[in-house]
Amino acid sequence: FIPREVIEKTKETMEALQKRNAAIQPSLAIIQVNWIYPVKNLKNKTISLCVGINMDFAIVKEVLKLNEDPGVHGLYLHLPPASTTSRVLTALKPEKDVEGLNHFSDVSLEGKTVLVLGGHGTLEVTLRCLIERNGMVAITSHWTSKNLKSEVCSSLSIIHSIWLLFLLQSPVLLFIQKNVVHSCTRWLQERQYQPWNLSSINLQPQTPVPSDIEISRAQTPKPVDQLAKEIGLLPEELEVYGRSKAKVRLSLLDRLQNQPDGKYVLVAGITPTPLGEGKSTVTIGLVQALSAHLKLNSFACLRQPSQGPTFGVKGGAAGGGYAQVIPMEEFNLHLTGDIHAITAANNLVAAAIDARILHESTQSDKALYNRLVPSVNGVRRFSPIQISRLRRLGMDKTDPASLTPQEINAFVRLDLDPSRITWHRVVDTNDRFLRKITVGQASTEKGQSREVWFDIAVASEIMAILALADGLEDMKTRLARMVVGTSRGGQPVTAEDLGVSGALAVLMKDAIKPTLMQTLEGTPVFVHAGPFANIAHGNSSVLADKLALKLVGQDGFVVTEAGFGADIGMEKFFNIKCRASGLQPNVVVLVATVRALKMHGGGPNVRLQTTELLEFSGCRSNLRKQIQIARLFGVPVVVAVNVFKTDTQAELDLVCQIAKECGASDAVPCHHWAQGGRGCIELAHAVNAAATRSNNFQFLYNLQLPLVDKIRAIAQQVYGADDIELSPDAKAKIDYYNQQGHGSLPICMAKTHLSLSHMPEKKGAPTGFILPIRDVRASVGAGFIYPLVGTMSTMPGLPTRPCFYDIDLDPVTEEISGLF
Amino acid sequence: FIPREVIEKTKETMEALQKRNAAIQPSLAIIQVNWIYPVKNLKNKTISLCVGINMDFAIVKEVLKLNEDPGVHGLYLHLPPASTTSRVLTALKPEKDVEGLNHFSDVSLEGKTVLVLGGHGTLEVTLRCLIERNGMVAITSHWTSKNLKSEVCSSLSIIHSIWLLFLLQSPVLLFIQKNVVHSCTRWLQERQYQPWNLSSINLQPQTPVPSDIEISRAQTPKPVDQLAKEIGLLPEELEVYGRSKAKVRLSLLDRLQNQPDGKYVLVAGITPTPLGEGKSTVTIGLVQALSAHLKLNSFACLRQPSQGPTFGVKGGAAGGGYAQVIPMEEFNLHLTGDIHAITAANNLVAAAIDARILHESTQSDKALYNRLVPSVNGVRRFSPIQISRLRRLGMDKTDPASLTPQEINAFVRLDLDPSRITWHRVVDTNDRFLRKITVGQASTEKGQSREVWFDIAVASEIMAILALADGLEDMKTRLARMVVGTSRGGQPVTAEDLGVSGALAVLMKDAIKPTLMQTLEGTPVFVHAGPFANIAHGNSSVLADKLALKLVGQDGFVVTEAGFGADIGMEKFFNIKCRASGLQPNVVVLVATVRALKMHGGGPNVRLQTTELLEFSGCRSNLRKQIQIARLFGVPVVVAVNVFKTDTQAELDLVCQIAKECGASDAVPCHHWAQGGRGCIELAHAVNAAATRSNNFQFLYNLQLPLVDKIRAIAQQVYGADDIELSPDAKAKIDYYNQQGHGSLPICMAKTHLSLSHMPEKKGAPTGFILPIRDVRASVGAGFIYPLVGTMSTMPGLPTRPCFYDIDLDPVTEEISGLF
Repeated sequence: FIPREVIEKTKETMEALQKRNAAIQPSLAIIQVNWIYPVKNLKNKTISLCVGINMDFAIVKEVLKLNEDPGVHGLYLHLPPASTTSRVLTALKPEKDVEGLNHFSDVSLEGKTVLVLGGHGTLEVTLRCLIERNGMVAITSHWTSKNLKSEVCSSLSIIHSIWLLFLLQSPVLLFIQKNVVHSCTRWLQERQYQPWNLSSINLQPQTPVPSDIEISRAQTPKPVDQLAKEIGLLPEELEVYGRSKAKVRLSLLDRLQNQPDGKYVLVAGITPTPLGEGKSTVTIGLVQALSAHLKLNSFACLRQPSQGPTFGVKGGAAGGGYAQVIPMEEFNLHLTGDIHAITAANNLVAAAIDARILHESTQSDKALYNRLVPSVNGVRRFSPIQISRLRRLGMDKTDPASLTPQEINAFVRLDLDPSRITWHRVVDTNDRFLRKITVGQASTEKGQSREVWFDIAVASEIMAILALADGLEDMKTRLARMVVGTSRGGQPVTAEDLGVSGALAVLMKDAIKPTLMQTLEGTPVFVHAGPFANIAHGNSSVLADKLALKLVGQDGFVVTEAGFGADIGMEKFFNIKCRASGLQPNVVVLVATVRALKMHGGGPNVRLQTTELLEFSGCRSNLRKQIQIARLFGVPVVVAVNVFKTDTQAELDLVCQIAKECGASDAVPCHHWAQGGRGCIELAHAVNAAATRSNNFQFLYNLQLPLVDKIRAIAQQVYGADDIELSPDAKAKIDYYNQQGHGSLPICMAKTHLSLSHMPEKKGAPTGFILPIRDVRASVGAGFIYPLVGTMSTMPGLPTRPCFYDIDLDPVTEEISGLF
Repeated sequence: FIPREVIEKTKETMEALQKRNAAIQPSLAIIQVNWIYPVKNLKNKTISLCVGINMDFAIVKEVLKLNEDPGVHGLYLHLPPASTTSRVLTALKPEKDVEGLNHFSDVSLEGKTVLVLGGHGTLEVTLRCLIERNGMVAITSHWTSKNLKSEVCSSLSIIHSIWLLFLLQSPVLLFIQKNVVHSCTRWLQERQYQPWNLSSINLQPQTPVPSDIEISRAQTPKPVDQLAKEIGLLPEELEVYGRSKAKVRLSLLDRLQNQPDGKYVLVAGITPTPLGEGKSTVTIGLVQALSAHLKLNSFACLRQPSQGPTFGVKGGAAGGGYAQVIPMEEFNLHLTGDIHAITAANNLVAAAIDARILHESTQSDKALYNRLVPSVNGVRRFSPIQISRLRRLGMDKTDPASLTPQEINAFVRLDLDPSRITWHRVVDTNDRFLRKITVGQASTEKGQSREVWFDIAVASEIMAILALADGLEDMKTRLARMVVGTSRGGQPVTAEDLGVSGALAVLMKDAIKPTLMQTLEGTPVFVHAGPFANIAHGNSSVLADKLALKLVGQDGFVVTEAGFGADIGMEKFFNIKCRASGLQPNVVVLVATVRALKMHGGGPNVRLQTTELLEFSGCRSNLRKQIQIARLFGVPVVVAVNVFKTDTQAELDLVCQIAKECGASDAVPCHHWAQGGRGCIELAHAVNAAATRSNNFQFLYNLQLPLVDKIRAIAQQVYGADDIELSPDAKAKIDYYNQQGHGSLPICMAKTHLSLSHMPEKKGAPTGFILPIRDVRASVGAGFIYPLVGTMSTMPGLPTRPCFYDIDLDPVTEEISGLF
């Protein structure tokens, strides 16, 4: 006797499982006659052969083909008696046979235990029986019966069921014969965490160091499916894009949910020069050292570069010298299309906003209602997305005919205030002429023109959502609640109000999967989400970090990068991303260069004399301050000095010495640019040591503090400001967001990356300033409030001679030149 | 003795070959110590193991790994004597051994024959010897020597060399032992055309016919690599994107260059209703019938849909009912990113134009010159793209210091006239508010604002180039010569003048490869280039058609689709696309529906009475005219009547009867929507029969005719106009294009698709009208002149209730709903 509640619970969880499981590829084929069991709900899991009764020749033909198909591990013949001819029974290879021919179609299972016999306990059949008849599951093996020929395939399907039932923690009765145990164990082991078997690629660095693209091209990457296998990914968790990139499915998180996370390392930097100080190269050099030299599993999590800067001034972002992601041109161009998907989704929202304003301005309530809820074949019904809007408006109705004229008015009119639209179009190109434009000037738009702008694509709120979401469902929810503007009545209007949120999720469904690539030394890298930590939060994605932390195993390392100086990227990493993910970092690596430290001390191009060395003020100001910021969060700091060939030994020694005086656990010079992972071994040891130190991680502010206090906490404790000063606009916005219930969101400051203060020219560690908050905006979907500090351009421009002058393609070899 | 010229010629062709060959993946690994032979030039073809002398344990480790790698067919040990230990020699599996250890580094080969012994005649080594030492090639097998253990691998590498040398028609001396012949033959056969071994997927159509997405989802596509194998593609010709899409490499055209083409069928239509008459479904139904039912190899070549209409009114474009490309959601969304690449490339040009205008307006010649040709590490040099511009300006100089001030002025100033810029930004979204906009209104753009617009992305000239290019080199040349505007002095300014053409080729390098997918019945489909035959040429790509024609084999069929009515899509197919490709179609299939024919007869919603049937004027007008248009080009016409369930048998019979009276070879009703390929068997037979008929293919006009006469020929003979009337603008433009040397380009009319005339409301076959040519533009890169007939919007809008209201994603199953 099994209690009723247990049965109910089992039914529920099995239904959930069946849904989730739909994404898993087939490991077992079911041949079945569709007039007995329609196969609709089984798609993606089965190869179904739909034949009429007595058409055994068709079954035989299919069986013979499946016999030879290496992707099909077993066949479960589930046929009506009339099709069960000897021709059919003898066609199947013994190794592929999963015993069948049992029928329980007539048995009522209400409240009973289903005894699923032998090998035909395929998950699908078991579940369908259960779900259709509210039964319980008991599984046994009777592969000694005359119809069962193969141990392995039989066990495989049983184990499949057992394993999934085990995951569900559902009651299951097992009657397994001893000789099944071996196969069971093996199958279960395959689904367990696999230790890495990484074959690193040797590097032979040359002197002088060739160009980035030459180095990248000289190294042949491992096929990405080989890399995936080496790090324990299952084939069904991989979606290969070409030879050297693959998306990784999120189902991995379910499979390895009980696997402890590895160690989590954040790479941040001091306040950079406009050229950057090499955080990406340190990140890559560090994982090359950890994986390829110290033989500690490690993963780098990087952000996909924007194509704007790639063709503008910056060039690529795949690292540089002998610390790169390869092939660097694939990393820098298109990748697996995530930013393109974000652009498409973002601009669909923008088009929907303007079209809706136009349509509302030219149509009566009735006309709008008739179009929004049309009669299709005589039936009028709300789409699910419209039902959601009705609920938000407080209406419980589902029959379109039942709405009162007032309710129709409320439903059809978003009544967007054109002057309070906060959504912008984006493009992944440095197109300065789109910084301020007027749209809607064609006569067809009937005078609804307004001033708008384009942002660079990576600044889209959808990018922030991609980075912070912890799964498809969470992403979809966040996309739906994005606020695109305010109605004339002062109410926020969301993407779901526009009816577009389902389409956004559809456009983004592949983008949510991180892209697997590799370093020059053949160690794994995830590329996901985007840069621009000044105007966005600029961290790689929560999902990439989580997948990587499972994959590296308990003693492994995940090295993730935060944009720009520790005051911006790292502060957002802790206060926004770690809050969203629930993850806690073990070590912060703070990247510094002698060049930038000299700039903070007065000028970048000076060679310091011995006497000046003692007063190396960039160290005592900016470096010290950035170390202090990291320590505010209670995490050990290792300073990595990215060595340039112009640096003297005395300079390097002094930076390391001062860094340790200022509170760094350790400080080491890094030679990854010239030497690859070998040049980062010292850093790898330092990070490994620091990761074992005690860790008192804490957030900088409590979310329940008032918004103003949270902003002030960042300004004072991180930037070193005396106080903040809110413009009247900013004050009004804060009041509005409080009123809308957004007061407990974290803060994402939009501030220049070129100074700890809001003044790009103020180097070192400025003090005695008041931080001006010009305006405050909200990314409700991403889940943060972003104050604008001073003026920040959200669209870079092209210089007089953009990078593209040197970029070329050899049409014969297909080799690219000029990327760096 | 070998004559000097032969040696020179061989050297040249070998170098060319070596370059082309760089794109081919390794089939043979060379383990070699890099201090003896640096492997730089061999990348992509070799796996190089870089080890120091005496590090034999590292070699052994690598050898043991490669022994088990199924992707490596043979190993050629090319080691210095000190590394040739017995451990190394015994590590290699006999089946993988390709004999090595011979050195000819000290031998001067000037003018001599190189005897490449045994299995070490890998192409790379052979070529390198040749190229470095001007030698000739002789190849022999001596695998009977003690070091050679395996026939197959040795032969493989020899055959590789022989085959490539054979392709080059270079002199080669062969000394092949008899027992090599078998392996040789097998290897060569693999590279030859392979007959198909297509396993079609059975369909079980249901009644009533479910929604498109339900039908698509109920069918599990074959893995795309399996499909590729079935149709004779080699693994190295495939770039898989996920499980059901793959890009196909153009190297296939080289491999099968001697294979005769299959038969070439164009699907066109009568003048459609706004909903379309089902050309895509007929195309897919026809190939399903040909391949899966008549067992005749066939390929459908379709265009990638624009995401604008997908989320607007049209929904998807993957066909419908039981004639679809699957998975339809992947076909309709992102695909393999080609349109995204076009958007990125197009908008990079736009950003470059505006930024250049701004920079020229604010800088002196000297400042511009210093920035455009900067001194890098003390050296100033022109980039190749700048040298090209200098050549076009008539300057032969290469030293930046040697230009006179006048020459500098000419070089640095494109002097674009803002009022004569013909390049527009694009977006793949139906965004009507971008139909007319003003850009450059931010203060940073210093008053350089101007009125511009966005087109839908598929209308970009870059899309036309993608469709018409016959290879990477041709595409690159076309991209470079695209004219983006006119200087104040009246000179055309090209993409290459902007310095951006190399970057465009880089952005488009993957887009040029067609995407392989499959129909519901598992038959192959290429998806490439884009729609919109009214404002663009709207045909699928020349390259997809060419690849498909090779793959189907001599008796197979390639069915390609031209957009809208035969007056637009088909006319452009013949006069533009067939001219570019050199291909000649064997049959035109003209798709008609009773619904549209009724519209042409007066009204779409009437049920015809018996008496009216005799006067079915839509047949006698539009259908007759469209048949006549097709016959103008001398190609047999088969009319396919796409059957709707509301059609009566009498209506269908009459349409078929009249079609035959009007000159169609045959006319048959098609039931593919409800029945899949089985419903198109009659059409397939009709097409097969028509393809054997005589074919007098001819172009409509000679390219050497004046532009006006070519336009008039189309207006009179295709549209039925009395004459054309050119606006003053149009006249001036024609004069200008003649003066610029573009007078011999073909014509791409931009005309409404809703009527044979320029007036969308005129149905049937209008006569007695004068076709107004409002303006004339030129796509110099794509290679056509496009006259604008009346007003044509190049940016669709969203309706009040766009499709996206119904589109949703189940976050658990990842299933999409609401696409149709």
